[in-house]
Amino acid sequence: EISSARLLDWVADLGRIGALPGGGVCRLALTDTDRAGRDWLVAQMEALGLTVSIDAIGNIWGLRKGLVEGAPVMMGSHIDTVATGGLYDGALGVLAGLEVIAALNEAGITTHTPLAVAAFTNEEGARFAPDMMGSGVYMGALDREEMLATVATDGSAVFGEELDRIGYHGGDTPVTPAAYLELHIEQGPVLEREGVRVGAVTGVQGISWTEYTIKGQSNHAGTTPMALRHDAGVVAAKIALAAHEIAADLGPPQVATVGVFELSPALVNVVPEKARLTVDLRNTDNELLKQAEARLQSAAEDAATAHGCTLARRSLARFDPVAFAPQVIDRVEAAATARQLSVKRMPSGAGHDAQMFAPACPTAMIFVPSKDGLSHNINEHTEAQDLVAGAQVLLDVVLDLAGG
Amino acid sequence: EISSARLLDWVADLGRIGALPGGGVCRLALTDTDRAGRDWLVAQMEALGLTVSIDAIGNIWGLRKGLVEGAPVMMGSHIDTVATGGLYDGALGVLAGLEVIAALNEAGITTHTPLAVAAFTNEEGARFAPDMMGSGVYMGALDREEMLATVATDGSAVFGEELDRIGYHGGDTPVTPAAYLELHIEQGPVLEREGVRVGAVTGVQGISWTEYTIKGQSNHAGTTPMALRHDAGVVAAKIALAAHEIAADLGPPQVATVGVFELSPALVNVVPEKARLTVDLRNTDNELLKQAEARLQSAAEDAATAHGCTLARRSLARFDPVAFAPQVIDRVEAAATARQLSVKRMPSGAGHDAQMFAPACPTAMIFVPSKDGLSHNINEHTEAQDLVAGAQVLLDVVLDLAGG
Ligand SMILES: NC(=O)NCCC(=O)O
Ligand SMILES: NC(=O)NCCC(=O)O
Repeated sequence: EISSARLLDWVADLGRIGALPGGGVCRLALTDTDRAGRDWLVAQMEALGLTVSIDAIGNIWGLRKGLVEGAPVMMGSHIDTVATGGLYDGALGVLAGLEVIAALNEAGITTHTPLAVAAFTNEEGARFAPDMMGSGVYMGALDREEMLATVATDGSAVFGEELDRIGYHGGDTPVTPAAYLELHIEQGPVLEREGVRVGAVTGVQGISWTEYTIKGQSNHAGTTPMALRHDAGVVAAKIALAAHEIAADLGPPQVATVGVFELSPALVNVVPEKARLTVDLRNTDNELLKQAEARLQSAAEDAATAHGCTLARRSLARFDPVAFAPQVIDRVEAAATARQLSVKRMPSGAGHDAQMFAPACPTAMIFVPSKDGLSHNINEHTEAQDLVAGAQVLLDVVLDLAGG
Repeated sequence: EISSARLLDWVADLGRIGALPGGGVCRLALTDTDRAGRDWLVAQMEALGLTVSIDAIGNIWGLRKGLVEGAPVMMGSHIDTVATGGLYDGALGVLAGLEVIAALNEAGITTHTPLAVAAFTNEEGARFAPDMMGSGVYMGALDREEMLATVATDGSAVFGEELDRIGYHGGDTPVTPAAYLELHIEQGPVLEREGVRVGAVTGVQGISWTEYTIKGQSNHAGTTPMALRHDAGVVAAKIALAAHEIAADLGPPQVATVGVFELSPALVNVVPEKARLTVDLRNTDNELLKQAEARLQSAAEDAATAHGCTLARRSLARFDPVAFAPQVIDRVEAAATARQLSVKRMPSGAGHDAQMFAPACPTAMIFVPSKDGLSHNINEHTEAQDLVAGAQVLLDVVLDLAGG
């Protein structure tokens, strides 16, 4: 059985690292606060008797022996956050993994299959794109050298140098798990709205991140007739609105977000010479997602042409939709039902480390409700009883898979 | 007669202060490079025998005695630039003023009326809004204490503190000139296109700078259905495009520029919580300008409402259109014609220090052509012969007004 007090204490402890004045946390990947979170996590893992490994992209995992040798059943998630993150996005999955280990230690249970708890580097993709970088490299979906060379989205740092700087550039070799399970907050409104306690996640929608850079000509805001301008900012604004129109036109579940929008030289009375924006497109249907991408690209080209600007496109992340393993989804559903928790099968709107494991081993996820559907927001909240219920389902499914 | 070598040397000398690697200059108001430019200017003024004064907003002017006491005929402009400025915007008017003094010194001429050469603080409004701040305070159109308390557009500094820091917080009392003349590059395409050498400026169009700040709700880009979002960035993009549609709809001379557009937290996968943008609207007709402002405001309110966001509006600058003195415009035209220079009457698209003097004393401006109409761009260029021709017309009109 899960100890709710221990789990909630850990959530609070980790939540103090990078805590923001108004609530929430900022532990952007490979910053000093991320390092502090990692140091704290490694100490907890060692205190629980886990054997800690760190690989060349900074992933951390702790192993617990089973009755037999071999690949472990892995529980994982991440402890990095966005700049305005909450206490649970990522942290819950890692801390619930610790709690599963602690509960088994306490009960003196050794599982048949070994167990592992993992925290993957830069799941958020907030400071360095793409997201799910650590788990992507761990499972070979992303190229390690390419990722180490990644420049921060704001141009301020190189991934590999930051990893060295915080002292988490390890040398251990990733192990492909026997199965992978991830507990996570839903980060959306569905469970709360429907009054359901647990989500049995069926898969993750496709994710497409594109950066557009537009180059026009800076000029005087007062003297340059509209017809003679090459205004990079207007092109960017048209692309941003096109993304939203495409989402409206395709309808749910298509979503579109322009999170970054920058002008240069960024002065009131200067026609912008350069603009940079990012577009995040997602859909559970890969064909519709490709359609959205193609329409966005043609809108972007049209806008650039109309204003005599040049357009450069860079893909920051592109993940196809992923389906989880039916037999593991079934077990999540069964475990929740056995605990008298209402449960619903649902796709994930957010990307998760689990999606990197799905092609290689039986994988699924457990969702718990998010208050008001808020996430990537300092007011992200999940009720304590839901955090505990999710951890309990995780423990039950882990015992089921690993043989307890 | 103007010495072209001396004038061009001065242009080159001042152009080295804050020179950018790719060409052009950056002497944003009250930065260290602005201070270096000021120090250089004061040294030149003293070398020419001018009595230098500095007032409480940092304006610098140098006085040359006349045969009688009293208010001087003033030649002025500014030496601050935008971040990606050229060598001539502002500098030309000040340096041509020095050249007029040097030429008179050389010829041993003392004018009847005293003369003055002035460089006004923060004409560009690039780092601190509004523009024409120094001349506005000098002539009482802007409140000195309010301007000293102005925060930089990027939030990084306070005007009065920066003025103290660079050592140009003087105590001298401004003098209202007997007449005011400003030589400036056109910064637009008209003179070059029409093959005309000199512009006799009839006035300045109205200028309206507005900052909009939009507050929505940050949320997850993958999990938040479009219908549940409060995306501050989309509201900002709609305002930006509305500004452009209003300009297209009203037609020339209405112009609209969105120079600043910022999102927060500015992450790829976070729906923006906050957005800030500036809109620069201009028109020679104040009624049309008011119409543009009203339409923009209602489009902004509609967009905010449609996305459940709050909207805050702040006026950064608002200047009515200004007409220059017919008798001074006539003299500019006559002086150019006498020198066999083609001349055209034209309004100014850019704001200028001259507009602050127009209500109080006979005022006009002299324009010279801008290559490709470029300004607020490092490739801003005016041919040497046009710089010299403009300075010659300035000298001729000054002698005409001051009695030589
Ligand atoms: N779970 C989560 O927020 N992941 C970040 C990656 C994304 O979905 O944008
Ligand atoms: N001349 C000039 O560029 N002035 C700056 C003020 C403005 O027109 O925006």
